[in-house]
Amino acid sequence: MSFSRFEIPLRTIMTPGPVEVDPRVLQAMSSPILGQFDPAFTAIMNEVMEMLRQLFRTSNRWAYPIDGTSRAGIEALLCSIIEQGDKVLIPIYGRFGYLLAEICERYGAHVYTIECEWGNVFDPKEVINEIKKVRPKIVAIVHGETSTGCMQPLKEIGEFCREMDVLLVVDAVATIGGTEVNVDEWYLDGVIGGTQKCISVPSGMAPITYNDRVEKVVLSRKKVERGIQTDLDRSIPSTGKTIISNYFDLSQLQDYWGPRRLNHHTEATSMLYALREGLRIILGEGLTKRFERHRLHERALVAGIEAMGLSLFGDKKRKLPTVTCVNIPDGVDGESVRRMLLHEFGIEIASSFGPLHGKIWRIGTMGYSCRKENILRLLTALEAVLVYHSVRVNRGEGVQEALKVYVEQSKVMNAGW
Amino acid sequence: MSFSRFEIPLRTIMTPGPVEVDPRVLQAMSSPILGQFDPAFTAIMNEVMEMLRQLFRTSNRWAYPIDGTSRAGIEALLCSIIEQGDKVLIPIYGRFGYLLAEICERYGAHVYTIECEWGNVFDPKEVINEIKKVRPKIVAIVHGETSTGCMQPLKEIGEFCREMDVLLVVDAVATIGGTEVNVDEWYLDGVIGGTQKCISVPSGMAPITYNDRVEKVVLSRKKVERGIQTDLDRSIPSTGKTIISNYFDLSQLQDYWGPRRLNHHTEATSMLYALREGLRIILGEGLTKRFERHRLHERALVAGIEAMGLSLFGDKKRKLPTVTCVNIPDGVDGESVRRMLLHEFGIEIASSFGPLHGKIWRIGTMGYSCRKENILRLLTALEAVLVYHSVRVNRGEGVQEALKVYVEQSKVMNAGW
Repeated sequence: MSFSRFEIPLRTIMTPGPVEVDPRVLQAMSSPILGQFDPAFTAIMNEVMEMLRQLFRTSNRWAYPIDGTSRAGIEALLCSIIEQGDKVLIPIYGRFGYLLAEICERYGAHVYTIECEWGNVFDPKEVINEIKKVRPKIVAIVHGETSTGCMQPLKEIGEFCREMDVLLVVDAVATIGGTEVNVDEWYLDGVIGGTQKCISVPSGMAPITYNDRVEKVVLSRKKVERGIQTDLDRSIPSTGKTIISNYFDLSQLQDYWGPRRLNHHTEATSMLYALREGLRIILGEGLTKRFERHRLHERALVAGIEAMGLSLFGDKKRKLPTVTCVNIPDGVDGESVRRMLLHEFGIEIASSFGPLHGKIWRIGTMGYSCRKENILRLLTALEAVLVYHSVRVNRGEGVQEALKVYVEQSKVMNAGW
Repeated sequence: MSFSRFEIPLRTIMTPGPVEVDPRVLQAMSSPILGQFDPAFTAIMNEVMEMLRQLFRTSNRWAYPIDGTSRAGIEALLCSIIEQGDKVLIPIYGRFGYLLAEICERYGAHVYTIECEWGNVFDPKEVINEIKKVRPKIVAIVHGETSTGCMQPLKEIGEFCREMDVLLVVDAVATIGGTEVNVDEWYLDGVIGGTQKCISVPSGMAPITYNDRVEKVVLSRKKVERGIQTDLDRSIPSTGKTIISNYFDLSQLQDYWGPRRLNHHTEATSMLYALREGLRIILGEGLTKRFERHRLHERALVAGIEAMGLSLFGDKKRKLPTVTCVNIPDGVDGESVRRMLLHEFGIEIASSFGPLHGKIWRIGTMGYSCRKENILRLLTALEAVLVYHSVRVNRGEGVQEALKVYVEQSKVMNAGW
């Protein structure tokens, strides 16, 4: 078996991630390596922390990436605060709520779940009532469920958790960088973001932030005795049990990201370059303007999809602005449509998980993929593929409705979006 | 706080990692994103598995990267086979042996250690005797200790472990791609490599391989019940306890890397591009030729260092060919020398850990950093910096001795090395 030079096809990626990456980010990644303790590199680490604080809208001291994919960030936060037998309440409204429950159970938590129908979210009062009943140490919840395209309002839940001294951990993987995630204003204690979605940086890093309430629990865990004193010396006395994972131990990670710079892993150089450039682009665009852009393209996409004669899945009032779920028309092989979109048009959209597999398509409008030409290209291609599959659609209507949204917006904004 | 465009200084990196990366690898990383289930991407995943088998010199079915830095690979392998109370024997001869012990203890193993003086390694018979005494389920050992520059012979230990049905897990982070790591021939059951050293790919991935003996233990662990059936359905009955980590659960990871392609994480797209290109370059050079190249440059470096009047740390018979440890002359501030090398010459070398901190410098000859011009540049720069620090050296001798090694080699090989 011999291996050819590296070559890949160019795709239009309209899934809920991984999505396309700005060429400036790709270029940053191709910069030469720096040593992990090179002052030029630790300066980048510090800049990324400050940029993440701005992205998360927080004054938390700790905001840094975990070197792994999004679920690495989720596991790091949860495993650093969960001790055997801790009560964790998890409201589940889609596939990724199950992941939170799975991770908590693995680390020995006593997991309580409430579930609601896929395609909807919880009334905050329902969650609050359950907190009153269960009295958990931690509530863990997904902000944007890419599996169902729904978004859970968090502020009321956050306020109540703070009042009750419950830690609120939020999976904001699908929302960070694409719509509001107001960590401090919503009283979120620990939050995990994803890079490969609305931040539009390749998969492989998970930015997290957590406040002093979380840090207090982390530092109360028993310190690891073994090892060399210079690497592992810790001054704070401990009461809890040891954090099981070494790789995800936030007490060691913050000593590496903090001024002590105690050696832990070797920070993923090129991925950090990518994250820095991705965050610079986001903050340069401005968070508010960026969220408006995401909503504009979502509006154009939804207008086009509905004008074409297709229907959306889920409660529109609870719709995630970065993912649009479309019901697959009766009798249509959803996978055959996806394959034709990919092979003939080079456009990727997603299927879904579990009970929704084969029932809906999921279309992402995230980060750098969230562009006018991508929306219009997808609508025209999807129509052609559906007609090829003998689906009755309103020919030409989809792209016209989307165009109207853009033209109207141009008049208002005089903007080149 | 505003953030400037991305810019970094160009360094000559002569540490034990992260080291310089071939421009072709940097270029591959700047290729556009593919979706994780795009056939063009899963083809790359399969190619990388085959390339890793060749690199590890194994016919193991499983050889794939963990999405995280090297210690993520170590933790993934260990936590997937260690159950509460399992006996693990760890022969420690430097800093990274302690890391193995720390990880095993965190996961509830009963850890037995033997230690030898830093700068030396174990006589295999010593390890074998200890195995007879302890009767562990697992022996975990470092192949190349970057902290001391020593390399542990493994074949005898491997043979005995196989005979006794003990699992041998090896941290080959510092050796893979730079010197022989013969997984099958040496009877290694599970092996972890690092990308940021002799493979010369940025930090952020940890290639691992394991055989059916390890897989059997992994599959005997209790399957996670929670989650959606289509994602988590498993057919093999289980006897052991659940693997604690979700992110590092090899049973789920191999179902993602294998033909079932069950969704786990979102594979780190650009890092995988980098790994594929890095491996293609390595296999194109040829493993044997590559190892010879590493030894040549090590020889030139050592000749230069000694001719300059400096001495090496550790037992030369047990020297790691990819790391050279140099005793810091009495009365010299090692950190001041390192700083001047970096700031004036743009060259980075490393200090060491624990008892050796301030006593030795560590110079890497790894992967793409392991080039003639880097060795010669370092020798001349180091001499200049030492003279500046009033250290008595044999002026001009270091670079002359290194040159002799290269010229002689050119005559033999007629090669442009």
